[in-house]
Amino acid sequence: LAGGVFMDKILEQSLLYDFYGEMLTPHQKAIYEEFVLNDLSLGEIAAEREISRQGVYDIIKRCKAQLGIYEEKLHLIEKFSYTKKKAEEISRYAVRIRENCHNEDSIAEYTKHIMRISDEIIEDF
Amino acid sequence: LAGGVFMDKILEQSLLYDFYGEMLTPHQKAIYEEFVLNDLSLGEIAAEREISRQGVYDIIKRCKAQLGIYEEKLHLIEKFSYTKKKAEEISRYAVRIRENCHNEDSIAEYTKHIMRISDEIIEDF
Repeated sequence: LAGGVFMDKILEQSLLYDFYGEMLTPHQKAIYEEFVLNDLSLGEIAAEREISRQGVYDIIKRCKAQLGIYEEKLHLIEKFSYTKKKAEEISRYAVRIRENCHNEDSIAEYTKHIMRISDEIIEDF
Repeated sequence: LAGGVFMDKILEQSLLYDFYGEMLTPHQKAIYEEFVLNDLSLGEIAAEREISRQGVYDIIKRCKAQLGIYEEKLHLIEKFSYTKKKAEEISRYAVRIRENCHNEDSIAEYTKHIMRISDEIIEDF
């Protein structure tokens, strides 16, 4: 369970980096990358960059705070999860159509769902 | 044609506002809103806010520059247009399935397209 929470934290930080990394300065970005993506320790990054361990810690803490604010304001991760879920739903209906390709009523129903979900993707973004 | 270019400009500014408006300060946001969404003139906004016309102009110019930088970094409008186009494609294939619900081969082909496009939405974001 602790491992799960840890993984969620890492995943969340990677997602924040994926979506908002470009908003960091190149210096911040490089350090956050080494910590979150390349899994270096504070000490390793400090030695490599010839700055203090505390300095590295402060930069990473600041990056996390900034990235968190971007998500609060723009909700990209939230929106992306939503769109992804919708696309997965569409895929499942496509499979059902293929499995029921002799049943006209099923096809009519499932295509209706696909069109509705497509519209939701278009409108609710 | 000039009208078209003008409309594109307005549309672009509204889109930038829709996607990144939350990144502006409340003051910037309020003024940009009045100019782009409510179509007030610089003079009208200046009178209403009791600031100089030049002051309003500078704020709007700055907002545009900032919003433009966000799009350059995050490409949300670009990504959204892409996803929207994909969802529209899916909808068109759903219509074709309904129109060809007696043709098993067509159904197989169109559902394959729908699944491919759904995957593209999920992966390429």
